[in-house]
Amino acid sequence: MCGIVGVVSATPVNQLIYDSLLLLQHRGQDAAGIATANGSTFHMHKANGLVRDVFRTRNMRGLPGAAGIGQVRYPTAGSASSEEEAQPFYVNAPYGIILAHNGNLTNWQQLREEMFRRDRRHINTHSDTEVLLNVLADELQRASNGTSLDPEIIFAAVAGMHRRVRGSYAIAAQIAGYGMLAVRDPFGIRPLCLGSIETATGKEWMVASESVALEGIGYKLERDVAPGEAIFIDLDGKLYTKQCADNPLLNSCIFEYVYLARPDSCIDGVPVYDARLRMGDYLAEKIRSEVSAGDIDVVMPIPDSSRPAAMQVANKLGLNYREGFFKNRYVGRTFIMPGQAVRKKSVRQKLNAMGVEFKGKNVLIVDDSIVRGTTSFEIVQMARDAGANKVIFASAAPPVKFPNVYGIDMPTRSELVAHGRSHDEICRMIGADQLVYQDVEAMKQAVRDINPALKDFEASCFDGKYITGDIDEAYLDRLETARSEADREGGGDTERSQLHLQRSGGNE
Amino acid sequence: MCGIVGVVSATPVNQLIYDSLLLLQHRGQDAAGIATANGSTFHMHKANGLVRDVFRTRNMRGLPGAAGIGQVRYPTAGSASSEEEAQPFYVNAPYGIILAHNGNLTNWQQLREEMFRRDRRHINTHSDTEVLLNVLADELQRASNGTSLDPEIIFAAVAGMHRRVRGSYAIAAQIAGYGMLAVRDPFGIRPLCLGSIETATGKEWMVASESVALEGIGYKLERDVAPGEAIFIDLDGKLYTKQCADNPLLNSCIFEYVYLARPDSCIDGVPVYDARLRMGDYLAEKIRSEVSAGDIDVVMPIPDSSRPAAMQVANKLGLNYREGFFKNRYVGRTFIMPGQAVRKKSVRQKLNAMGVEFKGKNVLIVDDSIVRGTTSFEIVQMARDAGANKVIFASAAPPVKFPNVYGIDMPTRSELVAHGRSHDEICRMIGADQLVYQDVEAMKQAVRDINPALKDFEASCFDGKYITGDIDEAYLDRLETARSEADREGGGDTERSQLHLQRSGGNE
Amino acid sequence: MCGIVGVVSATPVNQLIYDSLLLLQHRGQDAAGIATANGSTFHMHKANGLVRDVFRTRNMRGLPGAAGIGQVRYPTAGSASSEEEAQPFYVNAPYGIILAHNGNLTNWQQLREEMFRRDRRHINTHSDTEVLLNVLADELQRASNGTSLDPEIIFAAVAGMHRRVRGSYAIAAQIAGYGMLAVRDPFGIRPLCLGSIETATGKEWMVASESVALEGIGYKLERDVAPGEAIFIDLDGKLYTKQCADNPLLNSCIFEYVYLARPDSCIDGVPVYDARLRMGDYLAEKIRSEVSAGDIDVVMPIPDSSRPAAMQVANKLGLNYREGFFKNRYVGRTFIMPGQAVRKKSVRQKLNAMGVEFKGKNVLIVDDSIVRGTTSFEIVQMARDAGANKVIFASAAPPVKFPNVYGIDMPTRSELVAHGRSHDEICRMIGADQLVYQDVEAMKQAVRDINPALKDFEASCFDGKYITGDIDEAYLDRLETARSEADREGGGDTERSQLHLQRSGGNE
Amino acid sequence: MCGIVGVVSATPVNQLIYDSLLLLQHRGQDAAGIATANGSTFHMHKANGLVRDVFRTRNMRGLPGAAGIGQVRYPTAGSASSEEEAQPFYVNAPYGIILAHNGNLTNWQQLREEMFRRDRRHINTHSDTEVLLNVLADELQRASNGTSLDPEIIFAAVAGMHRRVRGSYAIAAQIAGYGMLAVRDPFGIRPLCLGSIETATGKEWMVASESVALEGIGYKLERDVAPGEAIFIDLDGKLYTKQCADNPLLNSCIFEYVYLARPDSCIDGVPVYDARLRMGDYLAEKIRSEVSAGDIDVVMPIPDSSRPAAMQVANKLGLNYREGFFKNRYVGRTFIMPGQAVRKKSVRQKLNAMGVEFKGKNVLIVDDSIVRGTTSFEIVQMARDAGANKVIFASAAPPVKFPNVYGIDMPTRSELVAHGRSHDEICRMIGADQLVYQDVEAMKQAVRDINPALKDFEASCFDGKYITGDIDEAYLDRLETARSEADREGGGDTERSQLHLQRSGGNE
Repeated sequence: MCGIVGVVSATPVNQLIYDSLLLLQHRGQDAAGIATANGSTFHMHKANGLVRDVFRTRNMRGLPGAAGIGQVRYPTAGSASSEEEAQPFYVNAPYGIILAHNGNLTNWQQLREEMFRRDRRHINTHSDTEVLLNVLADELQRASNGTSLDPEIIFAAVAGMHRRVRGSYAIAAQIAGYGMLAVRDPFGIRPLCLGSIETATGKEWMVASESVALEGIGYKLERDVAPGEAIFIDLDGKLYTKQCADNPLLNSCIFEYVYLARPDSCIDGVPVYDARLRMGDYLAEKIRSEVSAGDIDVVMPIPDSSRPAAMQVANKLGLNYREGFFKNRYVGRTFIMPGQAVRKKSVRQKLNAMGVEFKGKNVLIVDDSIVRGTTSFEIVQMARDAGANKVIFASAAPPVKFPNVYGIDMPTRSELVAHGRSHDEICRMIGADQLVYQDVEAMKQAVRDINPALKDFEASCFDGKYITGDIDEAYLDRLETARSEADREGGGDTERSQLHLQRSGGNE
Repeated sequence: MCGIVGVVSATPVNQLIYDSLLLLQHRGQDAAGIATANGSTFHMHKANGLVRDVFRTRNMRGLPGAAGIGQVRYPTAGSASSEEEAQPFYVNAPYGIILAHNGNLTNWQQLREEMFRRDRRHINTHSDTEVLLNVLADELQRASNGTSLDPEIIFAAVAGMHRRVRGSYAIAAQIAGYGMLAVRDPFGIRPLCLGSIETATGKEWMVASESVALEGIGYKLERDVAPGEAIFIDLDGKLYTKQCADNPLLNSCIFEYVYLARPDSCIDGVPVYDARLRMGDYLAEKIRSEVSAGDIDVVMPIPDSSRPAAMQVANKLGLNYREGFFKNRYVGRTFIMPGQAVRKKSVRQKLNAMGVEFKGKNVLIVDDSIVRGTTSFEIVQMARDAGANKVIFASAAPPVKFPNVYGIDMPTRSELVAHGRSHDEICRMIGADQLVYQDVEAMKQAVRDINPALKDFEASCFDGKYITGDIDEAYLDRLETARSEADREGGGDTERSQLHLQRSGGNE
Repeated sequence: MCGIVGVVSATPVNQLIYDSLLLLQHRGQDAAGIATANGSTFHMHKANGLVRDVFRTRNMRGLPGAAGIGQVRYPTAGSASSEEEAQPFYVNAPYGIILAHNGNLTNWQQLREEMFRRDRRHINTHSDTEVLLNVLADELQRASNGTSLDPEIIFAAVAGMHRRVRGSYAIAAQIAGYGMLAVRDPFGIRPLCLGSIETATGKEWMVASESVALEGIGYKLERDVAPGEAIFIDLDGKLYTKQCADNPLLNSCIFEYVYLARPDSCIDGVPVYDARLRMGDYLAEKIRSEVSAGDIDVVMPIPDSSRPAAMQVANKLGLNYREGFFKNRYVGRTFIMPGQAVRKKSVRQKLNAMGVEFKGKNVLIVDDSIVRGTTSFEIVQMARDAGANKVIFASAAPPVKFPNVYGIDMPTRSELVAHGRSHDEICRMIGADQLVYQDVEAMKQAVRDINPALKDFEASCFDGKYITGDIDEAYLDRLETARSEADREGGGDTERSQLHLQRSGGNE
Repeated sequence: MCGIVGVVSATPVNQLIYDSLLLLQHRGQDAAGIATANGSTFHMHKANGLVRDVFRTRNMRGLPGAAGIGQVRYPTAGSASSEEEAQPFYVNAPYGIILAHNGNLTNWQQLREEMFRRDRRHINTHSDTEVLLNVLADELQRASNGTSLDPEIIFAAVAGMHRRVRGSYAIAAQIAGYGMLAVRDPFGIRPLCLGSIETATGKEWMVASESVALEGIGYKLERDVAPGEAIFIDLDGKLYTKQCADNPLLNSCIFEYVYLARPDSCIDGVPVYDARLRMGDYLAEKIRSEVSAGDIDVVMPIPDSSRPAAMQVANKLGLNYREGFFKNRYVGRTFIMPGQAVRKKSVRQKLNAMGVEFKGKNVLIVDDSIVRGTTSFEIVQMARDAGANKVIFASAAPPVKFPNVYGIDMPTRSELVAHGRSHDEICRMIGADQLVYQDVEAMKQAVRDINPALKDFEASCFDGKYITGDIDEAYLDRLETARSEADREGGGDTERSQLHLQRSGGNE
């Protein structure tokens, strides 16, 4: 998962992109980058780290220009988090293009080889983004035949790109001297939306992964980009759009609603917050059917992402809602000192339980989802240590059983607590007295209740169905082998486990 | 307000102090420092910034030793936030002492002059901490007459110090080759607690501003340090204590319960979280008496600090509790670019309203307190923009009317919305339909309900009573003049307003 | 002027390139860069600054691989010294190429426009290196027609490049997965030499701007690269060479012998040191014919570059050689402090005169050349202040009258003290009692004496003849206009004047 | 060896001190520091590294004030080069004093213990400078008895200090609110001189280790500070001086003339350059008596420090003076890469031989001194490799046989090539055909020739006489044991050997 943004304006955009990346920071804390177009000259700065750490005054000074793109990166499965793979990427031929993307191509390795063999395009890193950019460049070359560009040629190139790449991708790109191109993959797996602002000199446009990145800086959300659609905004600010896919079919990633997106964003017509409330409604029903009425004294969320669901569960069941866990916002490091033992980090540095809310009570803890189960186990333990009489654990999402290949960093199957285990086994693993999972269909219906136009979703983590049709058992095996090799090669380990730790607080 | 910590161990303490400072980070984001004692040699690193930014691996490598102190600083009224004034401070004569402190001396300027005149002690900065350290050094010199130290001599020096300094102070210090000294002022205005851990080599001790800084790293809270008490732990880990004040009288700062401390800390026998719940109870009663029953559809907190009070208000009044505001955790900067207009920061980058919770509803917003009123005004406005029918604003603390001289950064009287304004005027200033304030007595009683031993509190912001007896109108006038001069001299302005902005989320 | 290096080895080359760049540091202190090829993946680090400041351990760790190129940059006339224009440059299509170059293209602007118009190659900066790289890429595309590369195809592309570009260029490049390409322009204006080393696994090759960069790290100088020649070394270390120019004609830059190169380098068969001695011989003859025998007490060099010539002058004239000037090696900065006057830098911080060597003496000062005349003026003044009776100034090079367009940073004509002034006027401008200039023909003959194969030289600064045939009055006018505009736009000024100041000690 | 500077002015001094430290950079490249006094507030910045690397704009901004001191540090025998021991040092009681010093106290350990035992002054580091500062502070306390200071009291304190400390010391200090104090030890071992400048507002004073640091920034050298003398300049610029030692006796360090000081400095009435010429004269006589007339073709210096002696040798013997060695100014690092072999640094990266000057010739190489002999060995080898027929090596200083305890970093006796070896053995060790050493008496006479007032010198390295009377065999043994332990403890090794490598170019 990553966050992207793209804009064409009449005034400098560096601060604008910076501010919108801050609003997307929850989508990726691994690396950040901004590239601007000043006339037909590009300027770029990118590095590993948080937005606030990556950009200093001198970097911002080096980013002049009234158009640009930005990205925050969350490393996707199997990819190393190297600085050289920070986005955006640039190719100079043809035309000069910079591109940032959110998603994951499932056939990037074939494309990489094919492009070198056929077109002698050298892809220097193992980033699928660099592959995607070169496919686009190659298609532009073919579609234009070396002439000047116009929107029709650009859209023809996007159509060519759609035919070649598989997987998920939401793109923001700039073509030197021409303007900004934004594209969403034909299944619309990853989100992308369009916003506008009225200025003294006319209407200006912006695209972003989430509506909050537009609204938070004063833009109005116009609409979501359609699956397969391309939007081109020339340097005068004129907007052109075209459906460039043969069979577009919206299958938004359900995980955006469950956990990834900010609650104050609206994705494909569905306010994320509202979807989470609705999931709470369905979860309440499930709980009602599985847990005896008098067995629960209080309902408690894990801050911050499960609050809406928990609130709604309490509301529906007529139970007391209490915030018994307090979350520490300040995260530090463990330093390796020569000849000095490493102190084990206590979970208490991240989360703390308020005794008064637990003592002698039957507590229903609501989390957004359960992935490895290790954090859930520690939370249950904390509740017991704080004096809870009984701990019932409910997950607003169904069991996570399958890996994700569309851009969400998930552990391998063997690490997923719900993979190959019965309900009772999972419950024992996390140490709860009782465990309640949302149903897959209820989760989907929760979103569909708000926007009935959403027929289906990319929900492979839960239902094992990979919409792009190119994922089989062998693919997943290769992926997990590559991943565990990368982990073994080191460095990664610490980094990765830290990221998973941060996951527990996800979209905040 | 600041956070301090001090420890004597048998193993290296750099990571330990680092971790505990992270847990106290909410008490000061302005500067951070750690000093360790390796045998009788001190090592120190301190700088402006967050703990995670101030300490890199090479700094930590430079902090060997099994005893040490640490501090996070929040600039107090009137003091510039210069790097040279970061804590801890060091004096080499007599004995070699490093010291960190939380609080504010009200007579530091007189002491500074007196010490130079009488003892030729040069105080290089305008930090009251440097003054305090020199008073302690001077008293140690007198008490010891140049001999070797023992606990009795040290306690005699503390008694001398108590007699000379006025104001609030919680101290953690190390005397080279001897051990750690911790002191709390005779009114116990600022908090300080003692913890212990059982190790393979025996019991070890630690002091910290809040219990969470002990418990979060595995120590057990033993007790609060008594007002006026001094605790000395020698390098073998042996603990000595003595009451060193003539008339100690516990008057904990009420603001710790209202807003400053973490909810998962326990101060002077009162879990902060419980105190906040109790304030919610009293606030509920007040609301019941002032607002018509059917006028409220939902109760809503401002994340994160007013949640306990809001929850309790909802609970007591039998109203729906809803979290309609979402808080963005990632804060960035506004860059000054030559020849480029500065974009106004939108509050939406910090806080966002979920439409569904506001649309057509009468909303009761609960905040922990109202200081300048500007943030309250913006919040009310956001609620209305999100479709609220009616906005009632309740403050879990009484009107803030007076400046603080004991270490909490407060604006001058003229900037306090409640200073010199009627209830209705304040309500108009923040734009609410109705405004409910907690009563001063109810606020105090809320804490007292939990620990009846707490007779009174330092609550000058609310009641204008300055417990140390040395604060008059002239003092406050001088303070505010100095402060506005410092503001005018520049730099400060931006910094300060930013700090105030951060205040709205205070103890998280 | 810049320095470049390229190598293919069987073991990591990062430290090797680093060390060789240190040996070429005198050729450019403005920026430094290294790019390595690890298999077919490139890694690069470049930034403004000295080699020792640009590369830290973490940068070196990021440069794995057994082949690579490096560059140190001296900003050439008219180009801004921006970080984005630091070398090497990279293009990914076709094949993936990284390239560093020393020299200056005189038709880069036409090429830049033509390539975008014809081939849609976007050149993002104003660096002629990026243009040169794209011409090479374009020619590789044409020559290969998208097939696999072999040396013949690569040499065909170089031949195509020679036909399109004008000016001076010595190139070190790497083609991903293939190997290293080194090229010298058809006039051989800028130097480039080839070295080898015998290792356990066979012979390895390296190219560098000066032989000292090979010999200083253990390589043996094999020979100079011929004008127009291309050398390709595949990743197995096999060497291929071919003459790729239609009419190659060696015209080495005479300024390398006068001033630029290190004395311990050997360029086109001529040890630079020996050339300088020989220039001293000719200068001695000129002095003998113009200055009365008894008029000189001592001969004195300006450290460090004029030592060989001065030694030889003294030797030939049978005069005393004395080092009366001492040079300070440590250069600092002048800080701009708000509200604080800037102290004028004294020349004494750079150079100092030993009184005993000047007092009452007639001093013949020998410098390598006179450019603006300002430094010469100050030196004469220092000699007089130190008590010199009479100051005769001799320049081992003839009057510098014309700008350089082949990669040496020279002031505009109006700033050259010898441009449009008579001999006497120049003498008055620098304040000397007498002035002796080398003759143009003698300077050339000095080098030719050592290697008679060198028929002629690029000596346009002295004789105004521009060998590439495309430089006319209009070109020079445009150049100087562009330059003075760049200067006016700021920053540049200080930087530039500092560089000129450093020039006085040039190749040390 | 270190370099110090101190100044009282009417305008800001940060840039002034910075510039003068650059001029003293040859005296210490290990660490640099500046402390300024702004009214009675001190500001300080110090760190490991060269002056140009230690001070950035923000550091300079933090150094306001019209008085101050500065220091560049060369680590002295046995002391670790830690950042915490960078100078200046500060104590706050009494009065507030900052101090920088050049030299080495031979009884600092006794003083350190005594001060803690008697006065409870805690010395935090192992720097003798911190000890010296505390002795001064202690004496000021005693002399003043806590009253206001005046010059007489200050001079009394200096007298007390002279009586307590042993060794060499030249001091620049500032007393808060009073002014600058400069002191030279009673034997005047380390140099210190006084300069002045006439400004619009009157005469201003400055002290520095070498006259070049005054003259290079526009001050006039007034005179050397007398051994034992103290100079006090109050904040109004008024100068007071007094002889504070009981038996002052000038014994300048002879090594300053041999090698340490810059040739353009004048120490104790002797221009260093002139002394080196004179040493050349005596060396020439010695050579004449030991080497057959026809045996030498050319005389050659090792750049840069032996040039004056070599020139004079050539001159006196009527031989050809040739510069056959070229020195590379750019020094880099060797990076430790995981799993990568470290390339051996070639001497050719530091020094290169010009073939034409050696081929078939009998070469007399003149160096300033021979310490370990390893560099001499390599130089002889280079000469032979370059084709020399015969290599005769001459040292302008006598054999270095004993360690230095007065502030010059020397290897232990066992590492000195001349320690315990016969003349012939030394000659064989360095691989020369013949070896000529200056005589001890000739070396001293060379300096005395210029200023006959200099009766004797601190020349213990050569003659084994330790002027301070407190150095015996046991002391030297302890020193060497401590040193080799420090070396074994690591880090130091690399650092140290690098420093010794740099030594070969010493005062440049």
